[in-house]
Amino acid sequence: MNDAISLGLKFNFEKGTLSILNQQRLPHHEIWIEIDSVAEMIQAIQSLKVRGAPLIGVAAAFALAQSALKDTPPDALATEAQALYEARPTAVNLMICMDRMKKVLREDFSKSQLVQTAREIYLEDIRLCDRIAENGAGLIQHGDSVLTHCNTGGLATAGVGTALGILRKAHDQGKKIHVFVDETRPLLQGGRLTTWELHKLNIPFTLITDSMAGHVMAEGRVQKVFVGADRIATNGDFANKIGTYAVAVLAHYHRIPFYVAAPYTTVDPDCASGQDIPIEQRNAEEVVGASSFAPSAVYNPAFDVTPAQLVRGWVLDKAAYSPQEIQAGALQKRI
Amino acid sequence: MNDAISLGLKFNFEKGTLSILNQQRLPHHEIWIEIDSVAEMIQAIQSLKVRGAPLIGVAAAFALAQSALKDTPPDALATEAQALYEARPTAVNLMICMDRMKKVLREDFSKSQLVQTAREIYLEDIRLCDRIAENGAGLIQHGDSVLTHCNTGGLATAGVGTALGILRKAHDQGKKIHVFVDETRPLLQGGRLTTWELHKLNIPFTLITDSMAGHVMAEGRVQKVFVGADRIATNGDFANKIGTYAVAVLAHYHRIPFYVAAPYTTVDPDCASGQDIPIEQRNAEEVVGASSFAPSAVYNPAFDVTPAQLVRGWVLDKAAYSPQEIQAGALQKRI
Repeated sequence: MNDAISLGLKFNFEKGTLSILNQQRLPHHEIWIEIDSVAEMIQAIQSLKVRGAPLIGVAAAFALAQSALKDTPPDALATEAQALYEARPTAVNLMICMDRMKKVLREDFSKSQLVQTAREIYLEDIRLCDRIAENGAGLIQHGDSVLTHCNTGGLATAGVGTALGILRKAHDQGKKIHVFVDETRPLLQGGRLTTWELHKLNIPFTLITDSMAGHVMAEGRVQKVFVGADRIATNGDFANKIGTYAVAVLAHYHRIPFYVAAPYTTVDPDCASGQDIPIEQRNAEEVVGASSFAPSAVYNPAFDVTPAQLVRGWVLDKAAYSPQEIQAGALQKRI
Repeated sequence: MNDAISLGLKFNFEKGTLSILNQQRLPHHEIWIEIDSVAEMIQAIQSLKVRGAPLIGVAAAFALAQSALKDTPPDALATEAQALYEARPTAVNLMICMDRMKKVLREDFSKSQLVQTAREIYLEDIRLCDRIAENGAGLIQHGDSVLTHCNTGGLATAGVGTALGILRKAHDQGKKIHVFVDETRPLLQGGRLTTWELHKLNIPFTLITDSMAGHVMAEGRVQKVFVGADRIATNGDFANKIGTYAVAVLAHYHRIPFYVAAPYTTVDPDCASGQDIPIEQRNAEEVVGASSFAPSAVYNPAFDVTPAQLVRGWVLDKAAYSPQEIQAGALQKRI
């Protein structure tokens, strides 16, 4: 296998050709951008041209493998790995992937070994998505309407996705489902990306503004909530796209089961609780853009933290865990 | 007094010249539109060029007065009054104002009497706003941060506003306050209009996306919530801009007092509960516009209903009522 091809990322493991689908231009423009350096990949990650916690880990590994194929010396590769590691602060997958690449650089370096590790990271992410989908699809009943926030599908991972992968699996199993898609301001990953994926998958959906989630819950239109995660603490608290926390509180108030789906690479064994998760603050322009007015101040946290007590289940690749299992320490074992 | 001049509406009671500030173009373009017929006013109301529950009542009364000044016969005026009455279904102020105008047409018609009633409706709205501000400002403490949704200021009324009028009054009293402004998707009345008003009033504020309200509450940054209303049922349930209900649930979860402010013209004595309030469904394009993707379906309710049990206080022109007073029937007396 020489080519890695996912919905938002392409890499040739021999030639080192690397390109990303510019997710900032979707859905109207499907533009692939060639990436020729680690610096370009960092820019693409920071501007959310490539995004999704699992996918940015894979994309960063590919960028480093590309650099190795260009015969960048190990010292310079280590510096590049660290720069990629620091590209965005909240999603831990990027850091865990870079730790794997740095371990090769430190202990076992050869060009082919580094490329091979990038390949393994890629293939593993596909497998992890499949397992998450298997573990989660059983939680969806025929006829369920499921609300989701942000984008957690093929554009956010190398495989079928996390939360959206579960919905896809349930749909493939022949279950009739409907998806309520939060548009997910400020950058509209729900309105632009999740609708695009659901449209391609032929899964029925309704787009709503984030402010309508409580209203559709009160109307009894939502049976489950599934979201992804950017980092899960060992007590089950997790960071995800800003607005996730509010959805969790609203689901709690309406007694609607709320599930988080992620691969083990999203669990941070060094975070005991959500308080330990750094929250990225982004540019004010992302918020102001829609209203086109320069106000005195804008607050723009990219993520928020949802406490474990609002979560009904954690759907990981290994298993779907209950609150009791999380409390008993299911996430505390280092893998 | 020949000229009515408010932040978003101008009328000359002798010449009948009528113009509205196009609120859809704010904040970047301050464009006044001349209104020459009831049909034009209905179009302006339905497209939200003129908006805000109290203001559309006043604007409709002015449009009918203008028509009378052009010697439209009483029968035709009655037809026009009914068309204005039906322009938007949720805010009851419009209907209550048109009922007053129709009563003149029915019982006591003269051109000057109809114009005089429009003048009274206008002057009364200014007085009601002042009283609401007086009744509510005492609820704000020095140092409070207050979260608000949609626009409830001078652009939404003929006077200083409802919820925003209270904040303005507290600020005028020398209290240090800060306002968190929900941008209020889909039409961004918070991001476009409330920030514009607060900027003019020199009141410090922070613009957030609707999805951040829960997060800033969890961070302890919000001490009170104040919102307006489009219709209040006699049990205290009320309809307001979509997203208000979610803010109320989030405030309840975080034990933050949540207040609704409105004049008596927003109370509907014929609505026993929120279930009786019709919710306007608006065009899908308002939601899709931001993400520019045509999905299979969009849900776009313009309002939602907040149940009385989530409300700490109802700040009306007559008084600020507690849950106990509402339960004892304070809103059930016809005025």
